[in-house]
Amino acid sequence: MTPAFTVLAGGVGAARFLQGLVRVADPAAVTVVSNVADDVEMFGLHVSPDVDIVIYSLAGVVNPETGWGLAGDSFAVADALRRFGYDRWFNLGDRDLATAVHRTRLLREGRPMHEVVAELARAFGVGATILPAADGRVATFVLTADGELAFQDYMVRLAAEPEVTGLRFAGAEEAVPAPGALDAIRDAERLVIAPSNPFLSIGPILAVPGLREAVAASRARRIAVSPIVGGEAVKGPAARMLASLGHEVSAAGVAAIYRGLIDVMVIDERDRALAPRIEALGLACAVTDTMMTSPERKAALAEFVAGL
Amino acid sequence: MTPAFTVLAGGVGAARFLQGLVRVADPAAVTVVSNVADDVEMFGLHVSPDVDIVIYSLAGVVNPETGWGLAGDSFAVADALRRFGYDRWFNLGDRDLATAVHRTRLLREGRPMHEVVAELARAFGVGATILPAADGRVATFVLTADGELAFQDYMVRLAAEPEVTGLRFAGAEEAVPAPGALDAIRDAERLVIAPSNPFLSIGPILAVPGLREAVAASRARRIAVSPIVGGEAVKGPAARMLASLGHEVSAAGVAAIYRGLIDVMVIDERDRALAPRIEALGLACAVTDTMMTSPERKAALAEFVAGL
Repeated sequence: MTPAFTVLAGGVGAARFLQGLVRVADPAAVTVVSNVADDVEMFGLHVSPDVDIVIYSLAGVVNPETGWGLAGDSFAVADALRRFGYDRWFNLGDRDLATAVHRTRLLREGRPMHEVVAELARAFGVGATILPAADGRVATFVLTADGELAFQDYMVRLAAEPEVTGLRFAGAEEAVPAPGALDAIRDAERLVIAPSNPFLSIGPILAVPGLREAVAASRARRIAVSPIVGGEAVKGPAARMLASLGHEVSAAGVAAIYRGLIDVMVIDERDRALAPRIEALGLACAVTDTMMTSPERKAALAEFVAGL
Repeated sequence: MTPAFTVLAGGVGAARFLQGLVRVADPAAVTVVSNVADDVEMFGLHVSPDVDIVIYSLAGVVNPETGWGLAGDSFAVADALRRFGYDRWFNLGDRDLATAVHRTRLLREGRPMHEVVAELARAFGVGATILPAADGRVATFVLTADGELAFQDYMVRLAAEPEVTGLRFAGAEEAVPAPGALDAIRDAERLVIAPSNPFLSIGPILAVPGLREAVAASRARRIAVSPIVGGEAVKGPAARMLASLGHEVSAAGVAAIYRGLIDVMVIDERDRALAPRIEALGLACAVTDTMMTSPERKAALAEFVAGL
């Protein structure tokens, strides 16, 4: 029996960690609470990139080069949609679009998001439980010097280039956690904040009423894996956002953000010198190789976290 | 200046006639009133097969082998949707699905069908005006010995095999003709009932309140082209339906159905012997080659009709 894991997840780093976790733990004992504030309507279809990254990764069908989308996908629909004036900046593949078509249909029939996610995960043969952080619509907006941007506008269309001065999670106050999410956080034996962007991926999860409190009150061993290694983000704009939002650009800066929510901060070996400063925050600090560049390294990191 | 043509159209035969017509007439002088009662929701997307057959045919991108769908289309999305339990009997190609995605989006935004059809036709560079018979939803149901079937269930899934004992056009009574449809019928110089199935393609057009009356009262020269040649349908189930619904299986049987709505019945040379019986119905009868097996023969038929 592996302990019950609950993982707060958003984006490619989280999905890679989860790929390792289901190799060393019983998938039936793994619950993922996924960010959905990056959901976007594209061509009238409801796309949930963070949820789908997890589903595709755990199903073993994710595009290994990008970390998102489906391996070997084609783009006939996206190409054909250009005739109607749609841009190609959001590069939705044909088989990826099929997932969005089915999701959109179920949502339009009035099914709540947690049921939709469960059905999609089941269709892809995913053994872990995937819960959307919220059933209602939460949407991340990014504040920049040039004004407010919808999340995918910032992240994909503008390649995360604008400097971020703030964030807004529209709809968060009215959102309701997916059924089971609060229990999964409170009752887990290991609660893991995945190596995700603290602002764009974990922030909107914690903004759903009740979730931050559930993490703070969880009886689990609470562990965060730093998305910052050697002062740089493994992927994405986390490092630049730490700086522009007034935080230290390091695993210690991330640890300070999570203070009160975690017991242990997992940092990479090359950041070993940061350990005393993280411990000075009242947190335990665990040092290991956090670079998930192979299935074996993903599993080794998961095993390390499981043993904390 | 070519005369103003209005064509009542549904299905592949109509589209082939229209391909010929826009070769011999100014497309800007051609208005198509298309059947929309074969519209179907597939995977939550709104598909309008009869409208799209006309758009794709007039844009020169229709699949020449089937007469519907797009030439060289792929089927990645339809294949991927099987994972979610969807059948492949309705074989929607990827680029064809892109049209449905855009149409669905516009309809969900509250745009009326006639605007949506106009936008799709414009995007495909179609010069003729295409009007849906109705802006509201009209849906053909086919009555058989085994009960009532939704149209595409009968036509595609069951390959039109069940014997048809009746028809029902759900929603027709509440439907409103697309803006311009009544005027286009009343004010045309040539009003053509295309070589389409009288029951499945033309019937639901005439069932929209006001349209049958507009045809009856039109000042146009009103011409129908027989879809029955030599006692057989050129394509589809029209011949078997004529029989099972108690009509003569011939161009004369079709002429009798259209009595009161047309002035001239165009029949194929091999049906020349039927001319006296059609004239006995009080109609003129015009004989020509109606088999549209090449661009030239399509244009020749259109030119013949234009000269009547």
